Amino acid sequence: MSVVKELEQYVVSIPDFPKPGIIFRDVTSILQDPDGLKLSIHELMHLLEDTEFDVIAGTESRGFLFGMPLAYNKRKGFVPIRKKGKLPRETVSQEYDLEYGTATIEMHKDAIFPGQRVVLVDDLLATGGTAKAAIELIEKLGGKVVKAIFVMELAGLNGREKLAGYDVESVIVYPGK
Amino acid sequence: MSVVKELEQYVVSIPDFPKPGIIFRDVTSILQDPDGLKLSIHELMHLLEDTEFDVIAGTESRGFLFGMPLAYNKRKGFVPIRKKGKLPRETVSQEYDLEYGTATIEMHKDAIFPGQRVVLVDDLLATGGTAKAAIELIEKLGGKVVKAIFVMELAGLNGREKLAGYDVESVIVYPGK
Repeated sequence: MSVVKELEQYVVSIPDFPKPGIIFRDVTSILQDPDGLKLSIHELMHLLEDTEFDVIAGTESRGFLFGMPLAYNKRKGFVPIRKKGKLPRETVSQEYDLEYGTATIEMHKDAIFPGQRVVLVDDLLATGGTAKAAIELIEKLGGKVVKAIFVMELAGLNGREKLAGYDVESVIVYPGK
Repeated sequence: MSVVKELEQYVVSIPDFPKPGIIFRDVTSILQDPDGLKLSIHELMHLLEDTEFDVIAGTESRGFLFGMPLAYNKRKGFVPIRKKGKLPRETVSQEYDLEYGTATIEMHKDAIFPGQRVVLVDDLLATGGTAKAAIELIEKLGGKVVKAIFVMELAGLNGREKLAGYDVESVIVYPGK
C-alpha cells in the first residue's frame, strides 16, 4: 500500500457539510490518531525534500495545524496569515471573493522580508481562492512563493488552475469536489 | 541568562491593543524567528517532562500553533477545540462568558475517550475563561485534564484562580495584565 493511500484511511468524509452537495474531508480525524498525525507531517515534509526555502506561511486556522510542525522540523520560522483584525501590529491585507461576498486576510508588514523564499501550507486546496489571496499577500511584501503544499486537494474544483505558474503539490488528491 | 528570559526577548508587546489599557503580548514575533519558534516548543516540552498523558487539546486558533508541534514530538494525537459551527461531525459544546456577551466552543464527541489523560495547550492564560470552558468540554467527554500549559500568563488577571485544582504551568509569567 502506498503511503498516500495509508494517510487517506484516516480521513473521515462527511456528506452534505457545510451544505448539501459538498463532501467535507475532515482533517481532524487524521490528527486525533498519533499515527495519522505523524504520517501527515512526514508526507508534507516529503513534498519539501528538494525545496530550498526560508520561512513557512500558514492560513488561519487549519494552516496553523500543519505549518507549525513543518517549520519546527525544518528549523524555519512560521508566519500566520490571519483573518482581518486579528494581528496586533501593522499589516498588509488582501480581499478575495467567496461564493457569496468577500473575505479579507492579513499578514504583519514585517512578517516577510523582500527576497525571502516562502512555502505556503494549508490543509485543503479547493477553489484556490484563499491560497491565491495568500500568495498575493506574500508577494506584496516582496516574498517569493517557491511552493504551495496541501494535505488534500479537491481536483474537481480546479484550484490548481487558479494557482497556475506556481509549484503546487498535495498529499491526497480527490478527483471530485 | 535563563531560558525563560531568552524566550521573553522574542515577544513584542503592543500597548493599547485590542483596546486602550491592554498590553498585547504578541506570539507571532516568537514564531517568525526560527530560534524563537524552536525555543518556545522546547520550553513547552520541558513543562511536560514528568507528565504522563494520552492526547493534546488546543483551542482555536493560537492553541493550534503550539499544540501540534508538541503532539508531533511527543507522538500523541491532537484534538482541536473550535468555535461554534466549524467542526463537521457530532459535537459537544460549552458556552462561557466574555467581557461583553458569551462565546461557545466545541469538540467532536469522539475526540476524547472516557479516561483519556489530556494536556490542554494555549498561547496565553489571561482571565482563564476560555481555558476553563475547554476543561469543562474535555470533562464532558470523560477526559481527565492532567495539565494545562501556556506560553505566556498575565498573572494580574488571576486566570490561575479560575483553574484552581488543576496543574497549570506557563513558560513566561507577566506580573501585570
